[in-house]
Amino acid sequence: MLPFARVTIIGLGLIGSSVARAVRQHMPTVRITGYDADPEVRAIADRIQLCDDITDTPGAAVIDADFVILCVPVGAMGAAAAAFADDLPAEAVVSDVGSCKESVVEALRAALPNGIVVPAHPVAGTEKSGPEAGFASLFHHRWCIVTPPEDAPALAVERVREFWRQLGAMVETMDPAHHDRVLAITSHLPHLIAYTIVGTASDLEEVTASEVIKYSAGGFRDFTRIAASDPTMWRDVFLANKEAVLDMLQRFSEDLSALQRAIRWGKGDELFDLFTRTRAVRRSIIDQGQDDARPDFGRSHD
Amino acid sequence: MLPFARVTIIGLGLIGSSVARAVRQHMPTVRITGYDADPEVRAIADRIQLCDDITDTPGAAVIDADFVILCVPVGAMGAAAAAFADDLPAEAVVSDVGSCKESVVEALRAALPNGIVVPAHPVAGTEKSGPEAGFASLFHHRWCIVTPPEDAPALAVERVREFWRQLGAMVETMDPAHHDRVLAITSHLPHLIAYTIVGTASDLEEVTASEVIKYSAGGFRDFTRIAASDPTMWRDVFLANKEAVLDMLQRFSEDLSALQRAIRWGKGDELFDLFTRTRAVRRSIIDQGQDDARPDFGRSHD
Repeated sequence: MLPFARVTIIGLGLIGSSVARAVRQHMPTVRITGYDADPEVRAIADRIQLCDDITDTPGAAVIDADFVILCVPVGAMGAAAAAFADDLPAEAVVSDVGSCKESVVEALRAALPNGIVVPAHPVAGTEKSGPEAGFASLFHHRWCIVTPPEDAPALAVERVREFWRQLGAMVETMDPAHHDRVLAITSHLPHLIAYTIVGTASDLEEVTASEVIKYSAGGFRDFTRIAASDPTMWRDVFLANKEAVLDMLQRFSEDLSALQRAIRWGKGDELFDLFTRTRAVRRSIIDQGQDDARPDFGRSHD
Repeated sequence: MLPFARVTIIGLGLIGSSVARAVRQHMPTVRITGYDADPEVRAIADRIQLCDDITDTPGAAVIDADFVILCVPVGAMGAAAAAFADDLPAEAVVSDVGSCKESVVEALRAALPNGIVVPAHPVAGTEKSGPEAGFASLFHHRWCIVTPPEDAPALAVERVREFWRQLGAMVETMDPAHHDRVLAITSHLPHLIAYTIVGTASDLEEVTASEVIKYSAGGFRDFTRIAASDPTMWRDVFLANKEAVLDMLQRFSEDLSALQRAIRWGKGDELFDLFTRTRAVRRSIIDQGQDDARPDFGRSHD
């Protein structure tokens, strides 16, 4: 059974365009309507026939939708929802794909005080951006975390869960505050650290930019992938999930200081113990199908 | 022209076994002799026919070699060289693949006061370890940094350079001290940070280990790959390249504090500016063939 028949996607970047492609693949009879605030993105979406319809206004996009999914940066959620609020059918379910949930729940409920809002976060992505970067299998075997407000109608919540299951995702329900703390460590802090070290390496005087690039296969290049992620999206994430990110960062900094001290004082056993412990984490991630088991992420070596 | 005819590999882990396979592929007439201090590794190498000969002692391995390449952790280089010093032919060239060069130059010259020592570092690897993890194309289109002492015979240096070129690498010559500072930022600090954050995530109480694993596709999993690298090798690297690593770590920590402050005070423009700048670094790495151009490192999405 299809959870929805007329899906509207607001925001046609990497995630929005992947949702469109995944819906077309997994629910081919569903009508897909798309809107993006950027006319250039709308033109591309039109040219590549991403959706059944691309509208010129957010109101026209939602007018007869039964499901509206916001795929815009978390800082833009409130304004994006307010822009179609007057045209939203009363029975339509509104969701999103934002990486922070407390701030988004608040913004969507403020913009749509009478709307049926069931926020969600598919934990998936790549470092690419834009409507041409999306692909239908992005959510396959990835987790999607649904964070419904307590008063959300149970049927609406179940329809959103079913929507993601049909796109190939595994679905979990979580409290928005807990979601934000879990993602602070599994996603937001890793991005912050990656952005930082790429910046640090770029600013060195004695090591040239050319040397950093040439010898990046020693480990540095791994960090550059997530440090190439969308700047607007990530600025918004750090501003929206400030408290949890700062808390996780504090813990990380303490642990880094302890390692710094172990290096300074030549405490090889402390280093060896940590380095042995961390190996097991990777094994679990691979065992649970959350990363490629091939060496080096399956990078080509030829 | 082949630079060497009889190559001996001391240490048959990921790098040593890759050298063996690469020599067999690119210089099929060269005789390859192998030795590893671990009898179990020797037995595996024998079973998979990694080399033409596997010897039971380091002395027997080098007795008629014209090139000896040490592929052991940097902290073990001195002892490994001392173990074959008495049997080393006077005209043989000795090299290594260690990730730090100042300490290795010192250790090898102390162990082989009359030897012809031309240290080198192929900047390549994966997170896997052991004789079965190696593969012949590991060094293709990767840089190998040769760090000859000032008094090294020019012909010996050129033969080592040619050896790596024939294995598919691009070769650069560098002063050992500069090498150690370049690698501190492009390899050692990235590993240290990856080990740290995987440790931090494992130690949280409010976020379970199971949640860290499940939602690792949000970015965390990228760090777990290099945090699964060989613990002995990396303990030795941090102890051997202490000063450069601590200096780069200090710069990183300062930059991280600046970002922490930008988040705390809601300075979105500062975040956005950095996140835009870091994107360009990834583009350069891909343009120069030092990473996979496919999204997500080419990970499988199905």
